[in-house]
Amino acid sequence: MSNNIRAFIIDIGASKIEYLFLHNEKCIKMNINTPTKMDFEEDMEQLSNSFNFGKKTTFVVIAFPGIIKNGVIVKWPNKPYWEGNNIIERFIQMFDTKSILIVEDCNAGAMASKYIFPDCSNSLFINVGTGIGSGIILNQNLYSGENGFAGEFGHIVVDYFSDDICSCGRTGCLQLVASGKGMASLYKKSTNDQTDNTKWMNHSIGKKILYKGAIYLGKSIANTVNLLDINNVHISGSVLKNDIYRKQALDTVMQEEKKFLSRKLSVVITSEMNSSLLGACIIAINKFSISATTKKNVLANFPRDGEMS
Amino acid sequence: MSNNIRAFIIDIGASKIEYLFLHNEKCIKMNINTPTKMDFEEDMEQLSNSFNFGKKTTFVVIAFPGIIKNGVIVKWPNKPYWEGNNIIERFIQMFDTKSILIVEDCNAGAMASKYIFPDCSNSLFINVGTGIGSGIILNQNLYSGENGFAGEFGHIVVDYFSDDICSCGRTGCLQLVASGKGMASLYKKSTNDQTDNTKWMNHSIGKKILYKGAIYLGKSIANTVNLLDINNVHISGSVLKNDIYRKQALDTVMQEEKKFLSRKLSVVITSEMNSSLLGACIIAINKFSISATTKKNVLANFPRDGEMS
Repeated sequence: MSNNIRAFIIDIGASKIEYLFLHNEKCIKMNINTPTKMDFEEDMEQLSNSFNFGKKTTFVVIAFPGIIKNGVIVKWPNKPYWEGNNIIERFIQMFDTKSILIVEDCNAGAMASKYIFPDCSNSLFINVGTGIGSGIILNQNLYSGENGFAGEFGHIVVDYFSDDICSCGRTGCLQLVASGKGMASLYKKSTNDQTDNTKWMNHSIGKKILYKGAIYLGKSIANTVNLLDINNVHISGSVLKNDIYRKQALDTVMQEEKKFLSRKLSVVITSEMNSSLLGACIIAINKFSISATTKKNVLANFPRDGEMS
Repeated sequence: MSNNIRAFIIDIGASKIEYLFLHNEKCIKMNINTPTKMDFEEDMEQLSNSFNFGKKTTFVVIAFPGIIKNGVIVKWPNKPYWEGNNIIERFIQMFDTKSILIVEDCNAGAMASKYIFPDCSNSLFINVGTGIGSGIILNQNLYSGENGFAGEFGHIVVDYFSDDICSCGRTGCLQLVASGKGMASLYKKSTNDQTDNTKWMNHSIGKKILYKGAIYLGKSIANTVNLLDINNVHISGSVLKNDIYRKQALDTVMQEEKKFLSRKLSVVITSEMNSSLLGACIIAINKFSISATTKKNVLANFPRDGEMS
């Protein structure tokens, strides 16, 4: 594939879609809102209009937050009305190419971690945004599990006797108490303030919810470190930009580790970067022949620094 | 190594030591109480007397429930006064042989699972006795983690805001609420009945503790199935012989699975068998040249049936 490409590298989130448009050695970063028309067909139509750049696409790599099997969305707790639909077929029509690769967004994030931290043989990548997901690198390889479903971190049960039902069907999931959406719901429930923005984070009740959520996240991470005996954790996602949450999550992991096995644990926060999109780029670079200039342009879109503990 | 061997295959538990003594094509199964003199030297002396069969040993394989690094016990929450001692050096003296192999007991249990269920590429082995441990098989191999500490299942935190301190140093560990010792302590605490036997299991308060403990265990297993996406779980250990506990643990895992991803999950209870001892045998057979007759005698000591769900 020469420099004459016309490709998309896309990260689909519950509320926002970030993507890179690759064209004639250039790489432009853009984003649109994820359609929320509560109807799969209408959502697809809106997406199709957003990506209608007029010509056949060379290839598309998509980081997707739901569970997909044979092209069909098996589970996407954030948009259950998308479930049961063949998303690959739709993207083939939408982009007029069969070169479509879909990867679970946190598996893509884990691939980004592997690229940024090549010395980590075993690592856990976690993203905390609207939902919570993870990707696991074991023995230098992405571990995807028996059925390709590994790493559903948001649906780890943390409150064992809770009655609060999660969108996945379980009760007491981490996502209910520690994700952006989960914590905003808890705030709404305890204050009756129904405003949909992030101002709740500055409210005293909001701060308590963030603090507790971060402890839940931190202990869940410590549990996974304990189970898998890994020395490296990389945490990404918009919620980590909040000072209370970030500090408490980091402190909790390190305190738990110190109490028991005191490994040489490194926890790095990479909240300034879209790891899933970077991972999708790494996958695109490995899979498709992209020119050196385009590669450079693609990778230039990502900062590499993180906050360490 | 001909048929003229004189070897030990040993499973050291917190309260009981089960072992096979291999001699002249014969294999005898025996057990002794684990010494509890609260002093490492005295415990070693008692052990040494128990194993004093008069002659040099050919080889020893030991399944041990604590964490060992370079021969030194790093952690054994059930017997902290053994920590910091080089156990391999002691066994070399005790058995008068350098052919000593020590393996973490639940890793041995996982090796037994691999032997009994050779078709499982990925599986989780859990033992619930005095404590709770696990061993993980991923891609047909034992997964032991970055530092050899993988699978500390008993020290997964399940009660995130509990103040109850575990012997490992953390608070709210699974072992405190779902292990034999943990549940017996909870019973003693709520009834002031300080009797040390298993009669508490028949008491109405004891039954509630067992029921709740089994839910904690079941949800912890479901969390691990969710994180690692494995289809096979094998549960061993004396506590599983209790009807309430066994049934509720099985039901909980299956209910949790049904709510979310509905994998083809198989959970097998192998409580009638000492999986760690069997695993140590498999390891001994793989490592040392044992005659066909002895092999047959060794393996004849283990039933292979389990209760499935």
